[in-house]
Amino acid sequence: MTDTDDDAYEEPLFQRVIEYAAAADTDVVRMVSGHPDWEPPAALREGLKEYADGDPESFQYPPREGLPELRSQIAERRGVAESRVVVTNGAAEANYLAMAEALDRKPGSEVLVTDPVYPYYPGRTTMLGGEVTRVPVAADGHVDVEAMRDAASADTAAIVVNTPNNPTGAVYSPDAVAALADVAADFDALLVADEVYDHFDLSGRFESALTLDRDNVVVTTSFSKSLGITGFRVGYAVFPEDQIEAALTRHTLVNVAVSRPAQAAVAAALRETPPSYYESIRDTLRGRIDDFTAALDAAGAEYTTPEGAFYVLARFDGFPGTLENVERLIDDAGVAAMPGAAFGETYEEWIRFTLCTDRVDEAAGRLAAYFEGG
Amino acid sequence: MTDTDDDAYEEPLFQRVIEYAAAADTDVVRMVSGHPDWEPPAALREGLKEYADGDPESFQYPPREGLPELRSQIAERRGVAESRVVVTNGAAEANYLAMAEALDRKPGSEVLVTDPVYPYYPGRTTMLGGEVTRVPVAADGHVDVEAMRDAASADTAAIVVNTPNNPTGAVYSPDAVAALADVAADFDALLVADEVYDHFDLSGRFESALTLDRDNVVVTTSFSKSLGITGFRVGYAVFPEDQIEAALTRHTLVNVAVSRPAQAAVAAALRETPPSYYESIRDTLRGRIDDFTAALDAAGAEYTTPEGAFYVLARFDGFPGTLENVERLIDDAGVAAMPGAAFGETYEEWIRFTLCTDRVDEAAGRLAAYFEGG
Repeated sequence: MTDTDDDAYEEPLFQRVIEYAAAADTDVVRMVSGHPDWEPPAALREGLKEYADGDPESFQYPPREGLPELRSQIAERRGVAESRVVVTNGAAEANYLAMAEALDRKPGSEVLVTDPVYPYYPGRTTMLGGEVTRVPVAADGHVDVEAMRDAASADTAAIVVNTPNNPTGAVYSPDAVAALADVAADFDALLVADEVYDHFDLSGRFESALTLDRDNVVVTTSFSKSLGITGFRVGYAVFPEDQIEAALTRHTLVNVAVSRPAQAAVAAALRETPPSYYESIRDTLRGRIDDFTAALDAAGAEYTTPEGAFYVLARFDGFPGTLENVERLIDDAGVAAMPGAAFGETYEEWIRFTLCTDRVDEAAGRLAAYFEGG
Repeated sequence: MTDTDDDAYEEPLFQRVIEYAAAADTDVVRMVSGHPDWEPPAALREGLKEYADGDPESFQYPPREGLPELRSQIAERRGVAESRVVVTNGAAEANYLAMAEALDRKPGSEVLVTDPVYPYYPGRTTMLGGEVTRVPVAADGHVDVEAMRDAASADTAAIVVNTPNNPTGAVYSPDAVAALADVAADFDALLVADEVYDHFDLSGRFESALTLDRDNVVVTTSFSKSLGITGFRVGYAVFPEDQIEAALTRHTLVNVAVSRPAQAAVAAALRETPPSYYESIRDTLRGRIDDFTAALDAAGAEYTTPEGAFYVLARFDGFPGTLENVERLIDDAGVAAMPGAAFGETYEEWIRFTLCTDRVDEAAGRLAAYFEGG
């Protein structure tokens, strides 16, 4: 494990790459940010229009815990009591509430995360006055449960995991997640399972941590990815019964409630969108993965094949994933991606490509040409 | 001044009154919650529908600082650099960011508020690890600047004020606000001025704290009241230049960004709504104030006449503003209002009536009959 001194929030690095790509005077395929490029469900658009015609009362404060017609659908789909659900401003707020709760129980203590890690987790930990401990993943990109167990201590307030995982694409096994809940329980800590990519399980093996039914597990997620609406900011957290009231209080003091037009649109989309919608997007992603990894083979790169989510990590010989090299790829190959170093040390030689573009073929061809020619 | 041990967040009291009123089997005029009952601008509805027809890209993450077409209008209207503006999830998040910033600069220190006070301020202070000091207002409901000066010390992280004021209806003079900024500056503290009722200045004397152009003043507000959309959750804060980056970082780690459909609708409404919209609502409120206070005169009550916002505090002889009496009013008079004790000690004998109903006449008649007959 590694304790890093600087767990500052990494958005500026994302931003810097995005701005660098936008400023390029050549055509650039954008594979930086994880926002869907596909069409949201038709019912979402219709739900928003219908909401816009409502009476003034429907434009006022929704219940702090979420619109009843949304919260009840969430509870039913997830098989949990409605009283455990808080609708949040995206998974971001859901994770914030869960981590704040954990660190309120043990002020000044540590949060265990994987390395590589989605940079918001360490950033949020530091903001909340906690210490970050990064535990390198196994060689296959999966969480290293034994290393997590070794790292955990009485100082541990929370273990935060993300499955399906950004950036490694690993879908953690139910046994691994259960073992992490045990480790957390041994030290009176919370396991926070961010399942925002649950609809993009390509392995068929994903199981929600909710199935564990533990009193120290908080599950967080959002509709940002599953409905293709990262800008709507609607997510939720499922807390253990004895922690929901504290989470609701914090939620209210920070946000009061989640934007109602967005909640109404999501409720309509959930009600009316068939499973085939989600399946067709998974099919699209499978095709993009095949195309992209074939080109990486042609370029002689090492890469991860995602079991879930929509990111591919690639390592090119003699071309480490530094910011400088990422900028070189933008300028010379016309492909924008994220430096692996943004996620920690474990994959700092790698580059993360997001498959949220219908120009994956084009990008793959450019990369193959660049590295074959190089 | 009073140090209270229990500065827990008071929403449960609001909720309790609202639920008690909803459970009544008789007709009750609802004057509890401060959400507008009037029609939002037509351009808001149209803006939301137009947004619903946008391409998938327009459904993705907006810039963390706010949609450019919204942020630029805010900056222009307020006469501040766009770089100082962060669009927030209502005034709630704006105040959270400002108070968190103040308490980050001076961990564990105190926040000065008035008594009476909007209960979210003390609740938020406690959540952020600060101490609350309540400074009673003057007899006319205005902030007591001398008492604030006496209460301030090296331990003061922020002075938080609300003008036009909920619940007293006072519109603070520019001189008073400037003096509070001076007091805060003397102790390297921030003055947070929550101006969420700025469009409901009925006195013609309101001036934004932004006109002070001080480097220790944060102004917060929202469109919840001015556009009649408390459920949309769109507000903003204007920070001093040297504090905006820290505020944006916290904003991103908690919320990433504000819901885009709501931002797009507000941007459209701002662009196209004429001043006459706001003036007509002020006229409506003036009429309601006249009707309601005339009935309070008839009932022999003492009351405040709001200079701004839409709340009237009333004191009925031998009928203190306890929760029990408020419940009695619901049952026996058919009028629901807030106990003054929810806002502190200064007005605990009083009851707060919200004028967000077109049944103010009916409520006034019921109160007059109840207290004249009583």
